[in-house]
Amino acid sequence: MSEKQVTAAVLVIGDEILSGRTRDTNSGHIAHYLAQIGLETREIRVVPDVEEEIVAAVNALRSRYDYVFTTGGIGPTHDDITADGVAKAFGVGISEDPRALALLLERIAPQDLNEARRRMARIPDGAELVANPISRAPGFWIGNVIVMAGVPAIMQAMLEDVAPKLARGVKILSETLDAHGLPEGAYADALSALAKALPDVSIGSYPQLSDGRFKNQIVLRAKDARALAAAVAKTLEMLAEISARHSL
Amino acid sequence: MSEKQVTAAVLVIGDEILSGRTRDTNSGHIAHYLAQIGLETREIRVVPDVEEEIVAAVNALRSRYDYVFTTGGIGPTHDDITADGVAKAFGVGISEDPRALALLLERIAPQDLNEARRRMARIPDGAELVANPISRAPGFWIGNVIVMAGVPAIMQAMLEDVAPKLARGVKILSETLDAHGLPEGAYADALSALAKALPDVSIGSYPQLSDGRFKNQIVLRAKDARALAAAVAKTLEMLAEISARHSL
Repeated sequence: MSEKQVTAAVLVIGDEILSGRTRDTNSGHIAHYLAQIGLETREIRVVPDVEEEIVAAVNALRSRYDYVFTTGGIGPTHDDITADGVAKAFGVGISEDPRALALLLERIAPQDLNEARRRMARIPDGAELVANPISRAPGFWIGNVIVMAGVPAIMQAMLEDVAPKLARGVKILSETLDAHGLPEGAYADALSALAKALPDVSIGSYPQLSDGRFKNQIVLRAKDARALAAAVAKTLEMLAEISARHSL
Repeated sequence: MSEKQVTAAVLVIGDEILSGRTRDTNSGHIAHYLAQIGLETREIRVVPDVEEEIVAAVNALRSRYDYVFTTGGIGPTHDDITADGVAKAFGVGISEDPRALALLLERIAPQDLNEARRRMARIPDGAELVANPISRAPGFWIGNVIVMAGVPAIMQAMLEDVAPKLARGVKILSETLDAHGLPEGAYADALSALAKALPDVSIGSYPQLSDGRFKNQIVLRAKDARALAAAVAKTLEMLAEISARHSL
């Protein structure tokens, strides 16, 4: 079993997210999907449809993480400028890609292939295509950057296409424990001591408000199943002890 | 009417978002709320519970935007390190704040005020408190950075507390038009020409997939109501023309 961590960042591109018009569900989907296959998402950013912002974010993220997954901005309209931004970030040219054009022609009649639709065949030099089984217009993969559509169903299909080709780290295992209705403040000191004593396990406490009452969960994450099991046992023991004292 | 833009960034702090365990709804809520009161969200970032990541993101964002709104990491557990990160970003000290302590004691009996709970009263030097009407433990405001809880109901209440004190820019007006079932590629060239001819109006096209068919919307945004009305009229005229040709 490899001990290597494979890291990722998600870059969401689109004014509609920043204006609050559209709620971004893509970044959450990607982070969850990647965690399942052993990649660790370390950062998410949302930037507007502004070329220099896209260029700066792509370059900041691709130099720090093993993979960058972008969503949005690869359609046929004037505000779809992701491909140009990514080409600029890599300092490569961009032009109509015959493979991408052939894919578009699977769905679009030749007489309907206007200038706007041809934009969707513009791919940075040296990029590989990412399949779009839903509406054909492909995403692409250049260096460690994977460029996907913003429409959730299409993005999800593209992620499926890409997944088998990704390097994978060791999958992080996790268990979620119910905090028995205890308030965080009742177990935080003990949990902190546990976290210090168990450096191979990452321990988080997540308060949730339900009908005005806290319903907290403790999440334990580790690479090693035995270390995780031992930490779960210790945490449950700690919670039982504090519950007993609380009900005295 | 002021022409000034007031810009904002949202910084979400929490491993649980990056692991895909919890879906972030806070950033979308904040972006939408700010847009309603005339602030323009220009960037959203999600970073893990790692001090140097928090410090770097706070400093990157506070130097670029008028306001930074953070969520998450101000509870009593060991993974709640936002206050320390923000103090470090500003290069100021952090200590137990008597005002914050008094608020905690409104809800917590003195004998239950353990070390972990006291952590929630640690506030960077020079910060103002942000009220938490739900569970008392306050957020805070230092420089142009507003630090709020991660629990959505509490974050939303904190945002309400802060809103009246924010500088406001001119509110951006917007209209959403239905693209009459036309595919993006059919109107993208015409829309691009419109966008170029109307520099005071920001025009976006948003594809949506519903039952396997695209159901697109065109969103027009402008500061001036008359400019917006004129752009809406021109866009509808353009759509009508293309629809007529499409049904020939």
